[in-house]
Amino acid sequence: MNLQIIGKEAVLASQVLQKLSTQEKNAALIACAEALVASSKELVAANAEDVAAAKKKGVSEALVDRLRLSDERIRSMAEGIRQVCELPDPVGEVMSENVRPNGLKITQVRVPLGVIGIIYESRPNVTADAFALCFKTGNAVILRGGSDALRSNLAICRVLQKTLERLQIPENSVQVLTDTSRETAREFMRLRAYVDVLIPRGSAGLIRTVLENSTVPVIETGAGNCHIYVDADANEEMALSIIENAKTQRLGVCNACESLVVHKDIADSFLPKLAKRLSEKQVELRGDKRSREAVATMTPATEEDYATEYLDRILSIRVVDSLTEAIAHINRYHTQHSDCIVTYNAENAKQFLRDVDSAAVYVNASTRFTDGFEFGFGAEIGISTQKLHARGPMGLVALTSYKYLVEGNGQIRG
Amino acid sequence: MNLQIIGKEAVLASQVLQKLSTQEKNAALIACAEALVASSKELVAANAEDVAAAKKKGVSEALVDRLRLSDERIRSMAEGIRQVCELPDPVGEVMSENVRPNGLKITQVRVPLGVIGIIYESRPNVTADAFALCFKTGNAVILRGGSDALRSNLAICRVLQKTLERLQIPENSVQVLTDTSRETAREFMRLRAYVDVLIPRGSAGLIRTVLENSTVPVIETGAGNCHIYVDADANEEMALSIIENAKTQRLGVCNACESLVVHKDIADSFLPKLAKRLSEKQVELRGDKRSREAVATMTPATEEDYATEYLDRILSIRVVDSLTEAIAHINRYHTQHSDCIVTYNAENAKQFLRDVDSAAVYVNASTRFTDGFEFGFGAEIGISTQKLHARGPMGLVALTSYKYLVEGNGQIRG
Repeated sequence: MNLQIIGKEAVLASQVLQKLSTQEKNAALIACAEALVASSKELVAANAEDVAAAKKKGVSEALVDRLRLSDERIRSMAEGIRQVCELPDPVGEVMSENVRPNGLKITQVRVPLGVIGIIYESRPNVTADAFALCFKTGNAVILRGGSDALRSNLAICRVLQKTLERLQIPENSVQVLTDTSRETAREFMRLRAYVDVLIPRGSAGLIRTVLENSTVPVIETGAGNCHIYVDADANEEMALSIIENAKTQRLGVCNACESLVVHKDIADSFLPKLAKRLSEKQVELRGDKRSREAVATMTPATEEDYATEYLDRILSIRVVDSLTEAIAHINRYHTQHSDCIVTYNAENAKQFLRDVDSAAVYVNASTRFTDGFEFGFGAEIGISTQKLHARGPMGLVALTSYKYLVEGNGQIRG
Repeated sequence: MNLQIIGKEAVLASQVLQKLSTQEKNAALIACAEALVASSKELVAANAEDVAAAKKKGVSEALVDRLRLSDERIRSMAEGIRQVCELPDPVGEVMSENVRPNGLKITQVRVPLGVIGIIYESRPNVTADAFALCFKTGNAVILRGGSDALRSNLAICRVLQKTLERLQIPENSVQVLTDTSRETAREFMRLRAYVDVLIPRGSAGLIRTVLENSTVPVIETGAGNCHIYVDADANEEMALSIIENAKTQRLGVCNACESLVVHKDIADSFLPKLAKRLSEKQVELRGDKRSREAVATMTPATEEDYATEYLDRILSIRVVDSLTEAIAHINRYHTQHSDCIVTYNAENAKQFLRDVDSAAVYVNASTRFTDGFEFGFGAEIGISTQKLHARGPMGLVALTSYKYLVEGNGQIRG
């Protein structure tokens, strides 16, 4: 496997993809979805080898479950591709037009990014998802999935490539790295000559490794130390319901609530009710001194607790004197993902929305809504926690760039 | 000097800046412009020490000239700041609004990036320019200029800081790194916890160092191996005038033309005229075999010539069989900055605009127009040659991000 060749092939494919019409792209995606379902048997067989090897290696049952493919999961993969067809194609959109005093006409047009690299864990469904989103936006994609899923990823990729080839679209529009060594992954992260952006999807550790090693521009995704602030002027019943939902509706996701901030004036009344409500869901509460004065059974919270994305049945709590202190606490410990205020005080809501520096800032709703489908963007490639290029749920537009078309009749600069 | 403290102070300042109104920001910028002019004497004195030290070190006259400040240059610096006031403030713009079926109201609002780092060479005017652009967009800025300009940069920074302090705006809205060692520069490039984006401005070498070492998201700027393609269907007089302008109007700039591609059907007629025209400007032509058949005096061009941004009186030339070959040549050797076709064939122009993958693609105009002022954006922080976040001339909008405000009345996810 030669990464230089893979990179060059991806660039060549991207030069063809950027010219395809929306109709051509959608037709190819539908064909890919159909081909995946038609190839269920061979995909499940390749996957069974991955699953057997992972089990033998002692991979945890939860991870083996994420790795496993079944006829039903392949149908749902195909359904995901079909949903991407339904989304509007941002490529070709005229973003601005401008005729300069010297007669130059400048048109800003949305174009594909070119070549997108995705680094992810052993989840074969990401292979199809990421391909569909990149292809719909006219990008070639190079996929580097976890080694435990290699046979599955290659089998999926072969089906996609064969389908594209049949339609006279470059098969290298999608490529899976066959060498899943760390050395090759690092080389991949430095393939700046061919790769326009690298999107890591997975654990905080994986994302950190990419950030540390990449010279290709990276979009940081994923980590969510999300906060809910219960203001003095909060409807307690609403706060309980939002916190319960944001903490427990799904534990292992980046938009789950990990930390609670409570105004001192409501803490004594509210925290005992919260403790009762969350004890039914087996959530452990870890609080500062004042939280523990309200609920004696709480574990003490450390500095580290406030900085931790638990992805588990644990919630850290801090009592503050003011909205300003709440905002300062959140801006210090959060990961700029999603944070919420529960209040019926419009001024406080306004201040919170303005001053909390997160991709999504909420008033009176669960942080669990930070999601491409919930935001109305459709399938997403990830949730950006950086401010460059894209922030929050990344729909198709996040997979595009633009260029300026400058049309003249002989203008020169004086 | 402690970079952690500098980073934290910048974040604190940015939290105040993001709340300032356009009026407050403009008033502060005007005050800064006035203060710079009023401090001309001390600025010129500090600069004189830099200039003397640089001369003693044997720095070239061209670089000493870029370093030098005079009353006139300080007035022009102040004028630059005043021009930034005139530009519309993008912060606070509502980019999209959307009420979801469950009643959640999602508003996408433009916000400052936060903290911007600029790494540049010994050009004191950049200190004031970069501050003005960052401040106008509500960002704090950390400046790391070349060591030869340190006294000048610190003097400018002190004037700006004193002015801001007087207006009760955090003085750390602008900070200059006093330690200009490489080690500190590298530490600065890894200050991801505090710095949202790093913009290198300067030579290809400087930019490469930043790309290689930074974990902070970088916007690549500057390198321009710009091409002009003379189609078979070209007006030769227009082509001559555009090439002369793009090559010689200003040699050392990134949007100057460095390479020419000529259709075989026009080469024998056109190249001798070009050789005559450019010989008057002392431009050396380096061509492939077919170019040299048209103009025997041409130097042979190597592979390296085609990949070189000369920034000098040299032009590489290649003759091609077709538009497709021209586009392939350009996409192979260019830096995705600015490329032009000279043609009166509308179909060829359309294909070139679509298939050349550059920030600015031209038909019948000099590449020298790729510039913030010429595009109508006003002052620019640089010209991006990457596709992520911003492409081409970066006006104020390129210094912003956005966030989603999500307002509900108790919504939870089912």
